[in-house]
Amino acid sequence: MKTPMVYVNGRLYPEDQPHLSALDRGFTLGDGLFETMRAAGGRVFRWEDHLARLRRGAEVLAISLPGESALCDAVAAALEHRTGEPSLVRLTVTRGVDVGRGVAVRPGLTPTVVARAVPLVPPTTRGATAVVAPMRRNDTSPLSQVKAMGYGDSVLARRWAEQRGADEAVFLNTRGHVAGATTANIFAVVGDTLVTPPPESGALPGVTRRLVLDLARTAGIPVAERPLSLDDLASAREAFTTNIALGIRPLVSLDARPIGSGQPGEVTRLLSARLDDVWRRFVEGP
Amino acid sequence: MKTPMVYVNGRLYPEDQPHLSALDRGFTLGDGLFETMRAAGGRVFRWEDHLARLRRGAEVLAISLPGESALCDAVAAALEHRTGEPSLVRLTVTRGVDVGRGVAVRPGLTPTVVARAVPLVPPTTRGATAVVAPMRRNDTSPLSQVKAMGYGDSVLARRWAEQRGADEAVFLNTRGHVAGATTANIFAVVGDTLVTPPPESGALPGVTRRLVLDLARTAGIPVAERPLSLDDLASAREAFTTNIALGIRPLVSLDARPIGSGQPGEVTRLLSARLDDVWRRFVEGP
Repeated sequence: MKTPMVYVNGRLYPEDQPHLSALDRGFTLGDGLFETMRAAGGRVFRWEDHLARLRRGAEVLAISLPGESALCDAVAAALEHRTGEPSLVRLTVTRGVDVGRGVAVRPGLTPTVVARAVPLVPPTTRGATAVVAPMRRNDTSPLSQVKAMGYGDSVLARRWAEQRGADEAVFLNTRGHVAGATTANIFAVVGDTLVTPPPESGALPGVTRRLVLDLARTAGIPVAERPLSLDDLASAREAFTTNIALGIRPLVSLDARPIGSGQPGEVTRLLSARLDDVWRRFVEGP
Repeated sequence: MKTPMVYVNGRLYPEDQPHLSALDRGFTLGDGLFETMRAAGGRVFRWEDHLARLRRGAEVLAISLPGESALCDAVAAALEHRTGEPSLVRLTVTRGVDVGRGVAVRPGLTPTVVARAVPLVPPTTRGATAVVAPMRRNDTSPLSQVKAMGYGDSVLARRWAEQRGADEAVFLNTRGHVAGATTANIFAVVGDTLVTPPPESGALPGVTRRLVLDLARTAGIPVAERPLSLDDLASAREAFTTNIALGIRPLVSLDARPIGSGQPGEVTRLLSARLDDVWRRFVEGP
């Protein structure tokens, strides 16, 4: 097994040494973006989707994103020590090192690019329990729709959930609709329709979310991207979360009351199987 | 002049070399706190206030803050190269380096402590113009009341303001009341009363804010910490912002309409002079 290395701005460093400037705006202000991606065989799963989201984020933050080949090089370098095994790779791009202080954006900063890969742990199939988070997700901010670095609310909400014996926290937005979980999108089967909140609700446009919507359509399941009320979620026939690391995870209870039967539902199991197939075919290679 | 150095976990590093792990949760998640403080003669202005706010923040985030003497050592080391000159020193404490990934808080992490000092630039006395920010401040989050590292919305809002030719952006909270500026508290003279929003409005409990409230009381000016509507601010007799770097800064227009006379007001000038006195006496020493 090779030693895990971290990629920073064109160089690989051992994990246990200093990599970054303390003057990096990613550190001082959370002024940057990231993507967490699956990879296997040296290839990144749904790379185009991740790149498109990163580009949208860079537009919102007005960060001059390095070109695709530079980003691919970063990811490839970070994956090297994984020798093709299934991995999660995080690519981070910040506005860069700023010797000045304050929030004003000075022109001419060079973005910092960081990439790091870890083993992809096979996700649990156990259903997740959730509680409603005490704080709202700020759907009034464009940052709610891009993968920006400030995850403080998610850290607090997850801890809050765990203190109550739950696996996840569900964020409502400022209008009281469901926005998502701490690091995952939320889907609910309402009547016969698979519903997931739109980005305007403060839902991050997840790469797995998009893929699952496509898989559902292909399977003939009616889908809707529309505001989801807390009542809709609580009284859903079934529900699940999606993210890149865990794929589809059944959501079996909310605030200690079962969702549907309190067991992973039929739509959840069907889509999980389809998603596993897509991933398996990717791992097996082109 | 000595070379500027950055303090990180017990060591001083030149500014231009790597200081931090890319696995630090302050970087990956914005999972940490900071204070920006004035200093002169090796002493920190209103240290007790900053320490108290840092401690409250550490409680909210459940970060085990190092003891006061360790924090003082960090600040003292960062100030060394300033040889007693008036400075701004930033003290950052993150949850620490996490080889795992995700938002879950693993026990046993060692907080990262960073400190850096720069010259205190004498603030401009020119009045600031402001526009109302397009996104709301998330007063539903406990993070709105502590100085957490995620400043993405402030970066966006400041840039938005500058694109419109304004110096500052005013955040409303989710209920439509004034929360503050991008990196400053807001005061308005409404009738005969000096009004500033309470922390429950999403206002950071600023150290300069507290000092200015005390100075106003001493000067016999009626003060109120209460929700401030946008109308109250727009139709105020005068208004100003406070923060540690700029002190009191007159706020002379909002969305291109003058506040009061459109010039720094009487209360603003009186309190500015008092605040300057307090700082001058501090610089002259005990």
